Amino acid sequence: MREHQLIQSFFEKQNIKRPDVILGIGDDAAVVTVPEKQQLVVATDTLVAGVHFPENTSPEDIGYKALAVNLSDLAAMGATPAWASLAITLPNADETWLHAFCQGFFELAAQHNVQLIGGDTTQGPLTVTVSVQGFVPQGEALTRTRAKAGDEIYVTGYLGAAGLALRALSEGRAPSETQTTQLNRPVPRVAAGMALRNIASAAIDISDGLAADLGHIVQQSQVGACITLAALPVSAQLAAAVSPEERIELALHAGDDYELCFTAPLAKREALAKAFADLDCPYCCIGVIYNEAGLRGITPDGETSLIETRGYEHF
Amino acid sequence: MREHQLIQSFFEKQNIKRPDVILGIGDDAAVVTVPEKQQLVVATDTLVAGVHFPENTSPEDIGYKALAVNLSDLAAMGATPAWASLAITLPNADETWLHAFCQGFFELAAQHNVQLIGGDTTQGPLTVTVSVQGFVPQGEALTRTRAKAGDEIYVTGYLGAAGLALRALSEGRAPSETQTTQLNRPVPRVAAGMALRNIASAAIDISDGLAADLGHIVQQSQVGACITLAALPVSAQLAAAVSPEERIELALHAGDDYELCFTAPLAKREALAKAFADLDCPYCCIGVIYNEAGLRGITPDGETSLIETRGYEHF
Repeated sequence: MREHQLIQSFFEKQNIKRPDVILGIGDDAAVVTVPEKQQLVVATDTLVAGVHFPENTSPEDIGYKALAVNLSDLAAMGATPAWASLAITLPNADETWLHAFCQGFFELAAQHNVQLIGGDTTQGPLTVTVSVQGFVPQGEALTRTRAKAGDEIYVTGYLGAAGLALRALSEGRAPSETQTTQLNRPVPRVAAGMALRNIASAAIDISDGLAADLGHIVQQSQVGACITLAALPVSAQLAAAVSPEERIELALHAGDDYELCFTAPLAKREALAKAFADLDCPYCCIGVIYNEAGLRGITPDGETSLIETRGYEHF
Repeated sequence: MREHQLIQSFFEKQNIKRPDVILGIGDDAAVVTVPEKQQLVVATDTLVAGVHFPENTSPEDIGYKALAVNLSDLAAMGATPAWASLAITLPNADETWLHAFCQGFFELAAQHNVQLIGGDTTQGPLTVTVSVQGFVPQGEALTRTRAKAGDEIYVTGYLGAAGLALRALSEGRAPSETQTTQLNRPVPRVAAGMALRNIASAAIDISDGLAADLGHIVQQSQVGACITLAALPVSAQLAAAVSPEERIELALHAGDDYELCFTAPLAKREALAKAFADLDCPYCCIGVIYNEAGLRGITPDGETSLIETRGYEHF
C-alpha cells in the first residue's frame, strides 16, 4: 500500500469534522481558524518504541497513548483541545496494525472533539510524534511559574498505578488488567485543566513522577514545597499490593500517570470545590508551597526529609 | 547531560524573540497569539536518518534541512512562517552534534523570523520531526485543488540538482560541492509563496519530483496538464553534466528540490511578473492545464506522451 493510499485509507477516515478546519489532511499544510480573543496552545510529544512503551504494546494502545500524553500537556495548560498532527515512522505498512492504531487514536480524539489535520508517514524504526493545538482565553493559560508561598498543592486522581505496571513488566511478571489499562490508557485530565482556569496558580501534568514534576513548579516559580507523604493518593488496589514504603516511593517517583499537579491560593478553596463538583475527577490536597527552596516530605512518623526531584532521564 | 540541561543549553539559546510568543520553551506547552483576520497554517514533516538524508550528513545540514522542508510546505500554502516545534529522537546526547544541529536550524530560522517554541527530546534512532505554523490572510491560502483549464503551469528555480547529488551518492561517487549544497540546503521559497497569494490558482512544493507533485495538483483539481519537456528549467551545470534524456528524467522525477510548482490564469501574467520582480527567485512557464485527465509531456521532437506521476514511495 502506497503512502497516499495509507493516508486515505486510515488517517482521513476520522468522523470528526470541525467547522474551524478550513483545510484538513491532503495538502501541503492544514488551514485552521483560531477563535477571537483566544490564545493558541501548542504541545508536542514523541513516543519511541521500547522507551515510552514496551515493544509488545498493542497498536490500539499506542495510538491512544500517543494522543493522550499530548492532551495531558494541553490539560496542564488549561487549554481546550482542537487539532492534532501525527508524524508516524513505521517499519512497514502493516494494515492491520494501522487500523488498530487509528482506532485507539480516534477513540480518544472523539472524546475531546479533536480533529486530525495532518502529519507525515515515513519508513523507519517505530516512532510516533503527535503535535496538538488548543485554545485558552487570553491570559488564562496555567503555567509552572506562578506558585506562591501559602498556596496549597493538589493532585488529581491516584498516583503510582502506571509505575506498578512498569515494575511488574521490568521484573518479567504480567501486570494486572487494571494496571495495564492505567499504563496504556492514561486519562488526560482535560476537563479538570479547563476547570482550573482562574483558580490554579500553577499546574503541570505528572509524566515523570510527582517529585520531578512538582520539582519543576517549585524551581520555575522560585519557591519550595512541603508535602505530606501519607496524604499522597493511591488506589485501594495499589495500597493493598505494596508496603507503605513502596506506596510512597511509587506515588513520588513513578511516572506515566498523567494526573495533574497544581497549586491554588487558600482563597480559592471554595471555587475549586465548586469547579470540580460536576467533574468525574477525584482530587486532594497534598501539601503547601513556602519560600524555602526545595521539595520536602513529611514522613508518616513526623520527620521532614528532602526529596530527590530527578525524574526519568533519556540520556 | 540531562534532557533539561540539553534544552537549556541548546534549544533555548535562539536569538529570535517574537512578541506573539507569550510562553515559549519550558512549560507543558507553548502559548502564542494569532493575528486577527489571519488563518493559521500548520505543516509537519519528518526526516529519518538513512531515508531522508544519508547517514553521514553533517548535523548542521540535518538541522537546516529539517526546518527547510517544513518552511517549504508553508511556502506552498502562501503562508508567512512564525513558529516551529522540534521533536528530536537521538541515539545519544552528543553535545558537539547538537551544537551543530542547532546552528543549522537556527541559521535558517533567523532568515524567516521563526521562533522555536517547544518540542520533545527523546532517546532512540535518529529521527527529526518539525512542525511549523504560519499565517495567511483569511481565504488566501494556496491549495492544490483550484487549478483550472487554461491556467499556465510554472516552476520556480531549477530542477534536478538534488537528484543529481543523490544519484552520485547512490553510485558511490562524491557529488560536487554545489550539488551537495542543493541536496542538503534547499532554499524554501517562502517569499515567492507569499507573493503568489491572489495570483496562483494552485501550488505545491516539489519534494517528490515535478511529475509526482504536479500530478497531485491535476488529480486534486480534477484537471489534466501538458508540459513542454524541453522547457523544464535546469541549471547550466546540470545541463552540461548529463545527456538531454537524463536532463528531462531528472527534471521530471528527481525529488528533494523544494522548488514551487504553481498554476495561474493567463489574466494574472502581468501581476505575476510584478510580484516576482523584486524577488531573487527565477521562475518559468512549463505548460498548461486542460480538461483531459492525466499528465502529458511534449517531447523535444514534438511527440506527446503520458508521464508517470508516481513519486518516491516509503513502503
